[in-house]
Amino acid sequence: MRLERVCVVGAGAIGSLLIGHLGTVVKTTVLTRRDEHAKSLNEQGLKVSGKSQLQTSVIASTNPADLGDVDLVIIATKALAVEASAKMISGHFPNAHVLMIQNGLGCEEILSKYGDWPVISGVTFMSGTRHSDIHVEYELDTATWMGPWAESHAKFEDVQQVESLINKSGLIAEAYEDLLPHQWSKLIFNSAVNSISAVTDLPHMKAFAEQDEIQDLGNLVFDMMNEAKQIAEARGVTLADDPWKMNVNAVSKGSTSGEDYAHVPSMLDDVRSKRLTEVDWITGSIVREAKKAGVPAPYHETMYRLVKAFEFSWTFENKGH
Amino acid sequence: MRLERVCVVGAGAIGSLLIGHLGTVVKTTVLTRRDEHAKSLNEQGLKVSGKSQLQTSVIASTNPADLGDVDLVIIATKALAVEASAKMISGHFPNAHVLMIQNGLGCEEILSKYGDWPVISGVTFMSGTRHSDIHVEYELDTATWMGPWAESHAKFEDVQQVESLINKSGLIAEAYEDLLPHQWSKLIFNSAVNSISAVTDLPHMKAFAEQDEIQDLGNLVFDMMNEAKQIAEARGVTLADDPWKMNVNAVSKGSTSGEDYAHVPSMLDDVRSKRLTEVDWITGSIVREAKKAGVPAPYHETMYRLVKAFEFSWTFENKGH
Repeated sequence: MRLERVCVVGAGAIGSLLIGHLGTVVKTTVLTRRDEHAKSLNEQGLKVSGKSQLQTSVIASTNPADLGDVDLVIIATKALAVEASAKMISGHFPNAHVLMIQNGLGCEEILSKYGDWPVISGVTFMSGTRHSDIHVEYELDTATWMGPWAESHAKFEDVQQVESLINKSGLIAEAYEDLLPHQWSKLIFNSAVNSISAVTDLPHMKAFAEQDEIQDLGNLVFDMMNEAKQIAEARGVTLADDPWKMNVNAVSKGSTSGEDYAHVPSMLDDVRSKRLTEVDWITGSIVREAKKAGVPAPYHETMYRLVKAFEFSWTFENKGH
Repeated sequence: MRLERVCVVGAGAIGSLLIGHLGTVVKTTVLTRRDEHAKSLNEQGLKVSGKSQLQTSVIASTNPADLGDVDLVIIATKALAVEASAKMISGHFPNAHVLMIQNGLGCEEILSKYGDWPVISGVTFMSGTRHSDIHVEYELDTATWMGPWAESHAKFEDVQQVESLINKSGLIAEAYEDLLPHQWSKLIFNSAVNSISAVTDLPHMKAFAEQDEIQDLGNLVFDMMNEAKQIAEARGVTLADDPWKMNVNAVSKGSTSGEDYAHVPSMLDDVRSKRLTEVDWITGSIVREAKKAGVPAPYHETMYRLVKAFEFSWTFENKGH
């Protein structure tokens, strides 16, 4: 594939990190939701601080027709906004591949209703803080994994080209012929940690690995991950990493330094701000995969229903008596 | 049994309703936790408004030795306070029967560590609002069910005497030879409704009976109650009422008048005030019964662990980053 022009859709924290880095090595345009945001980017460019120190000029618009043809579209919005993004680019960028970087499963299917671009699936572990429309801080400089989406006509060679470009830009990418073992490992980890954190108001911390007493929360994390492992197996996916070990390793961080680990997962951050969460794509996607496989999923169904009910409680004005 | 002198332990809403009514038909004393509370009751008596209009004189103290011997002790505290109450009366009231009115299962075992009184188990459906130390409003004038606790030497005849006394006082009591079918019906209902309400911040309302979509909350209520029914069966208990029907009937109230039903269960009220809940005696007791019966309880274990973790989150000062 030709890879000289990239359009990033969505300039949140992940999108901004991609724009700021890719803009230094390839012609990069940005499709934003807000006119004001596009105007600021056009006038002032994008600044990256933290792990990278960069200043990038970009062309931004809320109309894809303004951006010309590109070779790669990167959809970097949250899962909730994928359908709106797909509608925006529908009929545009006929020669592009599309790289999707969202949590969970199911966003590729949504995109494919709006065009037949070759699709690359992505899972990112990097993180940043968006200080303004034109300034993002690069914090966690960990990898973005990617692989051809099995139900489209993207090739592994294409994914490797995208991997090279992203690595050249200063971010970290890893291409896999089969992304599913990696995607599912992160999905299972995320599903348990995010949904449990969201309903208990507890950040991800050592309680998530405690299993001494029957009421200990680690038992729920363990049981939920174990259920998901069986669902993955029933769907023919062999996990790349054990989500339970990922959990134990994460919460053990800092125990040597004496400073307790406490990370607020995105779903807890969302519910604390009463923003709709990505639960439909995370825990909900595992529930749907279990149905397809015909295996039971009581833990995932429970956590899915609780998070949905919690979201619903915000719209319920009469709080009862 | 002789039944001329009653001591009520705990003067919360339920205790105050019992004191205010029983005080009009039998010599009634009160064991309180706070000196100030005892002093107010001794000086001003107790007023009942609402469904009953009563003014009762009582003798109250924080020391059981001040109250002389009695024929019946009624422990009307929350489950969390039963151990403290049992310690207070240990060595006192050697000729008394003890009636216990708490949510859930397991309070009788705690009491029996502190004395070998014949024990009557009770489950109440009445409710009131405690306006002050000396004023309670009688709201829901529904029954208190009671029966001999199988592991003590209380007789059904004794329970019937207590039933008569309570009915004579203007409250409603129903004696059963075997309380378990009734106690379990309410327990299963309470366990699902309270724990789900507590973690979703949603009052008991029509969403608790909705089962149209896979993510609907009614599915969780149904699955959880169904699991508990199987645990009851494995423990040899035949339910008096179907908890799912109790749930559907409750949330359907008001649908004819157009005013939506929304009731805040005690556990939601507790967590909104960051008070420890009775989950150990409600959902936790079903988890323990399942262990005894050797049957699985994934839904109850999950809800038990979530409520405990939510309570723990209040003590966790560093809310993470």
